[in-house]
Amino acid sequence: MKAFSPAIAALIESLRILPGVGQKTAQRMAFQLLERHRDGAGKLASALNHALEVVGRCQRCRTLTEGDTCSICDNQARAAEGTVCIVESPADVLAVEQTSQYKGQYFVLMGRLSPLDGIGPADIGLDLLEKRFQDGGINEVILATNPTMEGDTTAHFIADLAARYNINATRIAHGVPVGGELEYVDHTTLGHAFSGRKSL
Amino acid sequence: MKAFSPAIAALIESLRILPGVGQKTAQRMAFQLLERHRDGAGKLASALNHALEVVGRCQRCRTLTEGDTCSICDNQARAAEGTVCIVESPADVLAVEQTSQYKGQYFVLMGRLSPLDGIGPADIGLDLLEKRFQDGGINEVILATNPTMEGDTTAHFIADLAARYNINATRIAHGVPVGGELEYVDHTTLGHAFSGRKSL
Repeated sequence: MKAFSPAIAALIESLRILPGVGQKTAQRMAFQLLERHRDGAGKLASALNHALEVVGRCQRCRTLTEGDTCSICDNQARAAEGTVCIVESPADVLAVEQTSQYKGQYFVLMGRLSPLDGIGPADIGLDLLEKRFQDGGINEVILATNPTMEGDTTAHFIADLAARYNINATRIAHGVPVGGELEYVDHTTLGHAFSGRKSL
Repeated sequence: MKAFSPAIAALIESLRILPGVGQKTAQRMAFQLLERHRDGAGKLASALNHALEVVGRCQRCRTLTEGDTCSICDNQARAAEGTVCIVESPADVLAVEQTSQYKGQYFVLMGRLSPLDGIGPADIGLDLLEKRFQDGGINEVILATNPTMEGDTTAHFIADLAARYNINATRIAHGVPVGGELEYVDHTTLGHAFSGRKSL
């Protein structure tokens, strides 16, 4: 099929690296960008280049940020809380921030322990985390890794690490989502909800 | 919410111009590009810039292409067929090409007549099309605009134009899609299928 010129074909191919974008969607995106949104497409290309250039990792919490440390790590009031929430990705930081309930700091693993894939403690920055434990000032580690096999393993591993420095480690609660119905909740989640029950 | 640094926020905002991409998807895309696909992201930015620079419109059929005319218009065997298929967008050219049944040339309207939105004959290049009719060598115009109110109006308008140059105008058939079931087909389509019935 030679219906595309080389530049359009290259653009379509490049768009396919976006999550959830297949051949058809990439075609629609390419045509829309070139037909109707040339200004926006130019802005997208510059925003992408600019972000690739300036965005790196926070030296304290490993999240994506410009500059050496992120705005949350720079916030002294948050440091004073003495809590560190461990999450797997920058998107998880955002999710926790949106609850407006947590006022402490974060540590972003950028992954999870997965020995089968060759991902060990150093790959998820646990050496950096241990240094923060050593430096002191932390009285609670909240483990908010995903409730998967690897996420749970990672949580247990970090809890053991925290115990060595006499830091209290807690795991976020797993149970029936608010607004969810028991009938539609899977049995593992329901099991967690029962074992984690609280007295009213 | 200050969980994003400015460069990431700008990237997320820019990604939202893509069709079907909202805030959440744009966030996921931005994080994925910056966390895992830095090479691909760089390629995407260059492919986009390159396409914006070199891709323009074919001077004969108005489709998106590099150079002055597209590969289909340059193909002499296709010109010799003497047919022009009228479609609304470059994506439609691709759809027709994938049938492998049509061997003639195209004319891409890049829209449809829509007086309420101020889109008249000149905006969809009908002056250019009329010039092709005048130049001769065309014996059939196949109207493959979408079966919407505006698409039908556009088809009728172009059929009238073709009649002035004694060119035969045909409309693609509308009816029950292959593999579709009568029960689930809307009544307008079913009406078209009945009025367009053929003897076996």
